[in-house]
Amino acid sequence: MKQPRIVLINTSHPGNIGATARAMKNMGLDTLCLVEPKQYPSAEATARASGADDLLARAACFSTLEEAVADCELVIGASARSRTLPVPLLDPRACAALVHRQTDVERVAILFGRERTGLTNEELDRCHQLVQIPTSADYPSLNIAAAVQVIAYELRLAAGVVEKPHEPEVDYASMEQMEQFYTHLEQTLVELEFLDPANPRQLMRRLRRLFNRARPDQNEINILRGILTAAGRKPR
Amino acid sequence: MKQPRIVLINTSHPGNIGATARAMKNMGLDTLCLVEPKQYPSAEATARASGADDLLARAACFSTLEEAVADCELVIGASARSRTLPVPLLDPRACAALVHRQTDVERVAILFGRERTGLTNEELDRCHQLVQIPTSADYPSLNIAAAVQVIAYELRLAAGVVEKPHEPEVDYASMEQMEQFYTHLEQTLVELEFLDPANPRQLMRRLRRLFNRARPDQNEINILRGILTAAGRKPR
Repeated sequence: MKQPRIVLINTSHPGNIGATARAMKNMGLDTLCLVEPKQYPSAEATARASGADDLLARAACFSTLEEAVADCELVIGASARSRTLPVPLLDPRACAALVHRQTDVERVAILFGRERTGLTNEELDRCHQLVQIPTSADYPSLNIAAAVQVIAYELRLAAGVVEKPHEPEVDYASMEQMEQFYTHLEQTLVELEFLDPANPRQLMRRLRRLFNRARPDQNEINILRGILTAAGRKPR
Repeated sequence: MKQPRIVLINTSHPGNIGATARAMKNMGLDTLCLVEPKQYPSAEATARASGADDLLARAACFSTLEEAVADCELVIGASARSRTLPVPLLDPRACAALVHRQTDVERVAILFGRERTGLTNEELDRCHQLVQIPTSADYPSLNIAAAVQVIAYELRLAAGVVEKPHEPEVDYASMEQMEQFYTHLEQTLVELEFLDPANPRQLMRRLRRLFNRARPDQNEINILRGILTAAGRKPR
């Protein structure tokens, strides 16, 4: 998967750097750049990175944003605040689609600012685009690693590398087997005096709807028929 | 925004509970349920909740999952592992669309399991559906609050952008009624000598999956229990 770099600027809490590394690796991203982190390296960062400590160890540190993005052709800033100066605002899905359309995704950077204050106006002025994660108006401030998680998730979807969740192969019962089951069910319900053949009402229709919805497999139909046989076997 | 409850089961690290509260409030969710958290309340949870400490303070604690979801009609489990027994697997977007289509979203629960081991088989057996977040195969294990963040983000999008198709009003059986049915079913199968309590194998698990998939309504559960009563009534 071709991928943009994630740039964290002036991060205060090392735990957030570790959690960002983990969120990235979960989604298949691996290029993390740190601009003037307040406290790094740090045992807390490594702990929160969990199995993504390799990605953390490879993270590049820079003393200025300019150096971190010098070779980039597209810079996107993550922004929670609405801005007075009009700048294009992307939602995460549109951002991911834009990134994915770039011919050289490796030269795209997505910037995440400080925990409390985000990106400065000077940093925002370096961005070609801003991305904003939709949030509740009551509490719009996402944790920085949580914001990276959402963006990275959309990048993964957009890259189309998402494997369909593994669907187990199911050996569904055939219609013929279903009909045999319904015949067996009806006979048993009559034997049990639960179904009155003179006044069947809608019972079998209701049961058909229920079991058709469940779409039983071969094994399940065998179990159900076994239960019917056991229920019919008891002598009166 | 009508919303499902988020249920965290047996969480080890209080920081993850706080981070989950924050992720939820950012996305406009506010009902957090905790089942047997290892360490709670906790200063670390409150610190990580940041501005979502009100949501954390309102979180309900339960000693069992059964109590936490007793009044729910739809239970969705977050699962990283692929399972041997076939269960429907949703991606986060399909999960959010499903939740949004429910007539009573407040009676939907989404379960998140332990940090290392996720949900147990018994817990999975209580779920109508499973949701799986797409991840890199190299490192599929998301932090629990990060997983909640992705699901909550999709729920927010679905609440805003997904057109509600007209759903018939269905009076689904509650989890409590489902459990009463399974108890009744098990007793009856023992009486019928179809289930050997000394060697139950996977019978009840298989039957749970079948009936959970069908998601019976009140009327259907009453029919099924009537059949069990009739089957148990016959003298030997």
